[in-house]
Amino acid sequence: MDRRQEILEAAAKSFSLFGYKATTMDQVAKIANVGKGTIYTFFANKEELFNAIVVKMINEMRAEADSVAVEGAPFEQNAHARLMRMLKFRETHLLYAKLIDEEKELRTPAVSEVLQSIEKEIVSYVKEKIEKAIAKGELKQCDTELVAYLLFKAYLALVADWGKTHAHEITEERIVALLSGTIFKSLLL
Amino acid sequence: MDRRQEILEAAAKSFSLFGYKATTMDQVAKIANVGKGTIYTFFANKEELFNAIVVKMINEMRAEADSVAVEGAPFEQNAHARLMRMLKFRETHLLYAKLIDEEKELRTPAVSEVLQSIEKEIVSYVKEKIEKAIAKGELKQCDTELVAYLLFKAYLALVADWGKTHAHEITEERIVALLSGTIFKSLLL
Repeated sequence: MDRRQEILEAAAKSFSLFGYKATTMDQVAKIANVGKGTIYTFFANKEELFNAIVVKMINEMRAEADSVAVEGAPFEQNAHARLMRMLKFRETHLLYAKLIDEEKELRTPAVSEVLQSIEKEIVSYVKEKIEKAIAKGELKQCDTELVAYLLFKAYLALVADWGKTHAHEITEERIVALLSGTIFKSLLL
Repeated sequence: MDRRQEILEAAAKSFSLFGYKATTMDQVAKIANVGKGTIYTFFANKEELFNAIVVKMINEMRAEADSVAVEGAPFEQNAHARLMRMLKFRETHLLYAKLIDEEKELRTPAVSEVLQSIEKEIVSYVKEKIEKAIAKGELKQCDTELVAYLLFKAYLALVADWGKTHAHEITEERIVALLSGTIFKSLLL
């Protein structure tokens, strides 16, 4: 494994365990077992290192979302599978979950910005899928940016928010039935 | 004006200015210009006083939402007007806005609970309107609890969240077009 890769893995570990604010270049150097100077030959500062980690994480999430899609399946089926997988990733990926916690607890601006940019990535990923389905003649023309945003926020509300204010999660069947009969149905050509 | 009313107004002022955590019974007594003992003849503790204020606020919000509805107008028109008004109330009502700030800054548990209960009130208000429209034969049968939740969360996302991550608010016309073509359309009988 090359040095850069070792540093990235050490940084991911440190950000995941201690959060963005509490991670220092010294700490990363220690975990990676390299001198601090070595890190600076690859990354100018903590922000740059963090951005590299986040880009990797977004790619990983996208790969997971793509992995559950079935070539040729209806838009609704793939969109549902992809969004559920991304929300699962959001809850179970150590770094992602840590950043959500850190934002809530410390409101670190750099973390808020990163979480917002991840959200934007997800919405633009969904938008891209909607546009492909329109191009294929499966969905009607629509305000793709807002429909993507609405879909993402609807899933987030039903999967992540609901449980915070209710004793029981909503079953996946009930989510499917709700969105199938409302947003998804309205998009079909 | 009776004593109880004076105390309630003083408390509303104090909660709105200083938040829940920083408000004390002494402060309320001072603002109301009554002895602390007088307050206790009406309210056993700060929690009780706070609950009374919140109940008043919810009734006020409901009255405002009702005031923009037009008897006999289509469900969509009234639902849109009501939800927009409630979200405006949420942003401009001093106490409501203060509680949202306080929850973000201090995460006071009593405040989180109250905000959740207000959200539940709004969703059950929307649910009630959906059920009336179903009974009138205007909307189809649906999962009224989740449709109400979805509608509320959709408006919250489009009106309140979007602006936090984008340079420009979404115009009301674009919100109307989006929801009219998706969720609302799917509900019509």
